Amino acid sequence: MAKTYPNNAVLLMHCPDQPGIIAVITEFINTNGGNILYLDQYVDRVNGIFYMRVEWDLENFSIPREKINEFFNTLYAQRFDMDYKLKFTDKPQRMALFVSRMSHCLYDILARYIAGDWDVEIPLIISNHDDLANVGRQFNIPFEVIPVNKVNKVEMEAKEFELLDRYNIDFIVLARYMQVLSEDFISRYPHKIINIHHSFLPAFVGAKPYHAAFERGVKLIGATSHYVTAELDAGPIIEQDIVRITHKDSVADLIHKGRDLEKIVLSRAVEKHIQRKILTYKNKTIVFS
Amino acid sequence: MAKTYPNNAVLLMHCPDQPGIIAVITEFINTNGGNILYLDQYVDRVNGIFYMRVEWDLENFSIPREKINEFFNTLYAQRFDMDYKLKFTDKPQRMALFVSRMSHCLYDILARYIAGDWDVEIPLIISNHDDLANVGRQFNIPFEVIPVNKVNKVEMEAKEFELLDRYNIDFIVLARYMQVLSEDFISRYPHKIINIHHSFLPAFVGAKPYHAAFERGVKLIGATSHYVTAELDAGPIIEQDIVRITHKDSVADLIHKGRDLEKIVLSRAVEKHIQRKILTYKNKTIVFS
Amino acid sequence: MAKTYPNNAVLLMHCPDQPGIIAVITEFINTNGGNILYLDQYVDRVNGIFYMRVEWDLENFSIPREKINEFFNTLYAQRFDMDYKLKFTDKPQRMALFVSRMSHCLYDILARYIAGDWDVEIPLIISNHDDLANVGRQFNIPFEVIPVNKVNKVEMEAKEFELLDRYNIDFIVLARYMQVLSEDFISRYPHKIINIHHSFLPAFVGAKPYHAAFERGVKLIGATSHYVTAELDAGPIIEQDIVRITHKDSVADLIHKGRDLEKIVLSRAVEKHIQRKILTYKNKTIVFS
Amino acid sequence: MAKTYPNNAVLLMHCPDQPGIIAVITEFINTNGGNILYLDQYVDRVNGIFYMRVEWDLENFSIPREKINEFFNTLYAQRFDMDYKLKFTDKPQRMALFVSRMSHCLYDILARYIAGDWDVEIPLIISNHDDLANVGRQFNIPFEVIPVNKVNKVEMEAKEFELLDRYNIDFIVLARYMQVLSEDFISRYPHKIINIHHSFLPAFVGAKPYHAAFERGVKLIGATSHYVTAELDAGPIIEQDIVRITHKDSVADLIHKGRDLEKIVLSRAVEKHIQRKILTYKNKTIVFS
Repeated sequence: MAKTYPNNAVLLMHCPDQPGIIAVITEFINTNGGNILYLDQYVDRVNGIFYMRVEWDLENFSIPREKINEFFNTLYAQRFDMDYKLKFTDKPQRMALFVSRMSHCLYDILARYIAGDWDVEIPLIISNHDDLANVGRQFNIPFEVIPVNKVNKVEMEAKEFELLDRYNIDFIVLARYMQVLSEDFISRYPHKIINIHHSFLPAFVGAKPYHAAFERGVKLIGATSHYVTAELDAGPIIEQDIVRITHKDSVADLIHKGRDLEKIVLSRAVEKHIQRKILTYKNKTIVFS
Repeated sequence: MAKTYPNNAVLLMHCPDQPGIIAVITEFINTNGGNILYLDQYVDRVNGIFYMRVEWDLENFSIPREKINEFFNTLYAQRFDMDYKLKFTDKPQRMALFVSRMSHCLYDILARYIAGDWDVEIPLIISNHDDLANVGRQFNIPFEVIPVNKVNKVEMEAKEFELLDRYNIDFIVLARYMQVLSEDFISRYPHKIINIHHSFLPAFVGAKPYHAAFERGVKLIGATSHYVTAELDAGPIIEQDIVRITHKDSVADLIHKGRDLEKIVLSRAVEKHIQRKILTYKNKTIVFS
Repeated sequence: MAKTYPNNAVLLMHCPDQPGIIAVITEFINTNGGNILYLDQYVDRVNGIFYMRVEWDLENFSIPREKINEFFNTLYAQRFDMDYKLKFTDKPQRMALFVSRMSHCLYDILARYIAGDWDVEIPLIISNHDDLANVGRQFNIPFEVIPVNKVNKVEMEAKEFELLDRYNIDFIVLARYMQVLSEDFISRYPHKIINIHHSFLPAFVGAKPYHAAFERGVKLIGATSHYVTAELDAGPIIEQDIVRITHKDSVADLIHKGRDLEKIVLSRAVEKHIQRKILTYKNKTIVFS
Repeated sequence: MAKTYPNNAVLLMHCPDQPGIIAVITEFINTNGGNILYLDQYVDRVNGIFYMRVEWDLENFSIPREKINEFFNTLYAQRFDMDYKLKFTDKPQRMALFVSRMSHCLYDILARYIAGDWDVEIPLIISNHDDLANVGRQFNIPFEVIPVNKVNKVEMEAKEFELLDRYNIDFIVLARYMQVLSEDFISRYPHKIINIHHSFLPAFVGAKPYHAAFERGVKLIGATSHYVTAELDAGPIIEQDIVRITHKDSVADLIHKGRDLEKIVLSRAVEKHIQRKILTYKNKTIVFS
């Protein structure tokens, strides 16, 4: 039984701030029979930039969906010097999962997916190990083992590109994938790769952050989900959270306590991305509620 | 009307772990008529170290207080290769506050002090500016302005040492004091100087952490209280906490939101220090509940 | 040296939702030379109600401030069936504090006030005890002792009304004031009295919530700031927060840990009220960020 | 490949407080060659009760495991008027899951189980609906549909008892099971049934707590895991947590946000139960870290 998706349009935009933008766009939607379901906006007054997300029901919208972009572009985008994306919710995005050996983030995502919490399709899991192949079978999702390492990275990533193309993947979630992607890879998916790092970035960049946190004697550990960019662990942060620890906690305890943090912080970011509620600018995110 | 303080002994100790230490010490206290009010212990099983804090009522304790240390040392300290401190709660510690221009931490501490929440005496406030002199007058506490800067630091710190000695200061709280202490200063008060840093250390060490947090686009800001050591912002962490922020928050908003965090995180640390519930080892703390 | 306040107008409004309201109002402000500093809106799509807060700089606004209300009312309020308030920030609200014997909320508020964090005036403290009279002296604020009890409530509240009128009080903060106000009192200050209740309402309504929390064995304690209405502890909630406790905490520990929670949760609510960022509807609040 | 479990003994005990209990018991373990891996204790000084949990490695323990209880009972239990349980970790507890239609708690638990995070066996899932039967198949766990309702409860619970006996179930987790158990059922599993309630108890007892929370206009929603007792939602609380909400959140948003809270709060409680780190007394819990 195939899931059905809502028939809405989503407009994500930013432009130089000026009065009346909201009015013009909401009037455009309303006068053409669109029912606005969601509108959120933010004005960066320091830099004079206006950001908006608006979603409306296309059921009674009089402009054919294949013409909306043309109309919008002609009527408003140039006039307001607007940078925008127009998306339709009835065509769910297609997400690939990259994993290594740990299953907690993978299960957390697949449980939401199978329960129908997210309007997304997950047609592909890629891993550099076969440990979690059984999870692919449980959820009936192709699980491809690509044993990438530092030496064979170019060759293996070529295989990954082929798979990502074949499955029409829109964006990628690194669900505790323990490999660094090449710059070539990252440049093909700009702000389309979400990673979970197991520290409150920018503290403890790089490998073994729980060990580093233990050494430093912090009283909180964190997790950070972010878009992957060329510089390691330095991309735009989407979501962060922490959990309290004490002197009694060993490194193993931190790893154990951190797992819940990692999966929740990653899933919150993935959900916002699926809902197209994240705008990026410079190296930061605007995350609408 | 002078405040009266409880007549208890507090033993803080650590030693190589071995069976029976708790038994031996609790029996020592009990058989001599001491009523144990608090006992907390922690075993670092990796390094084989036993840590304990025990507090007992001296009311009916048969060993004279001036003899307890001698007895304890002879009977147990050498036997267990123990590192310990013995303190008496009827002699409150004397705390000096160092401030600059911001009053939120200062008021938070003095409000607790004046309400009698803490068994401490605060006979001295030192500042490098006179902005907050009126707060000293409000609470009837000597407020000394020592306009230290990078050039005159040796000379000015000499004045500070003189004041700290004159007022018999046991420990120092840097309540948003915007000067770096010299190594000489720090070495005179080992694990006796508590600072509040306005970031979740080790992220954003040094000056202007809120600006750095804003630039990085974090979704949480933090504050960290720690003992001051020779390396800047690198001493043993006592307490940390965070507050959630969003893309809507400017640097000014971070500074504003951070103030509550700073004062609470600093006061929690000061309280634990006053209660003698903090043990330090290597560069970490054990903070008993 | 008198504090100077910004010369802004603040419009708080709600009306039946329809397209173009934001546009019309922002155009009104912009075409008349007003610089919008803040705009936040919320649409309750279930009930079809539009809520907005907009603040603009009057420096170059061409409509005289005493005429703005008339213009706005004539042009827009009737057209949109709008319920609105128009306020000016250069005339700070006047706040009275009601206290009993505990000082932590009182100091927290006065420390913010004296530091200039809030655009408010605090000309009056009323208490049913004289314990905190010295705090009034410290901050040079009239401190009136009105020893109200159940028997003399009518008579004593009459004195309070006289004081509140004499000092031109706009709103009242019950900073751990341990008396229940009469219905008559409450009806004179609708949504103008902010209370702090020391539980996460609606749990533990009424007296001694920490004792009740201890009895129930909860693992979190909370505090709730709310507008006072006729029904005890049942008014619109403005802000809540919690702190974690354990089986080790006695009732005294809960009371101690709760104090920080109470003062922060109350001050957050007072700040939002001062900033005129709270809208009430039915028995709930919209709190703009 | 069967999982192997550690060969440890766990002693959970409480007795009237008196000096030397820790010493006596740790000496008993140590002199007989047991290596203590964990010891935590708590003294309720108000009621004079001593609680302890101690776990030791049996590898070189000289007393045969089948004799430990007898020895311990004879030597210490009567002497100290002790109430105790002695358990062995190599025999994992057997847990049954009760579910209805929502899968989030079920998947969260099974993902931990399958990853080997918990020393437990889950041989049985019981549901009053067949919606989640596929999850049983995914994880290869018998999934029994018992369509209990108010009318047939006695008959259906008899079937459940038969299943629970057949599978040698030690304790039961209600993972969003939407049926109230009979008193007979509850009395068969005293402090052996863990429930998750989707509010911060004692607020919003009973059905539809998110709707009630929405109506009340709270700013935090919570979840509470507790042992089931005869009175609905009134058993000993094991764990609670909250998440912040705003006026923007609809009931559907609360339900959505609450799911992560529910699953984490339930799993934390189940983990502590599996680790035998929970002691109950009166209607409260001691939860060791």
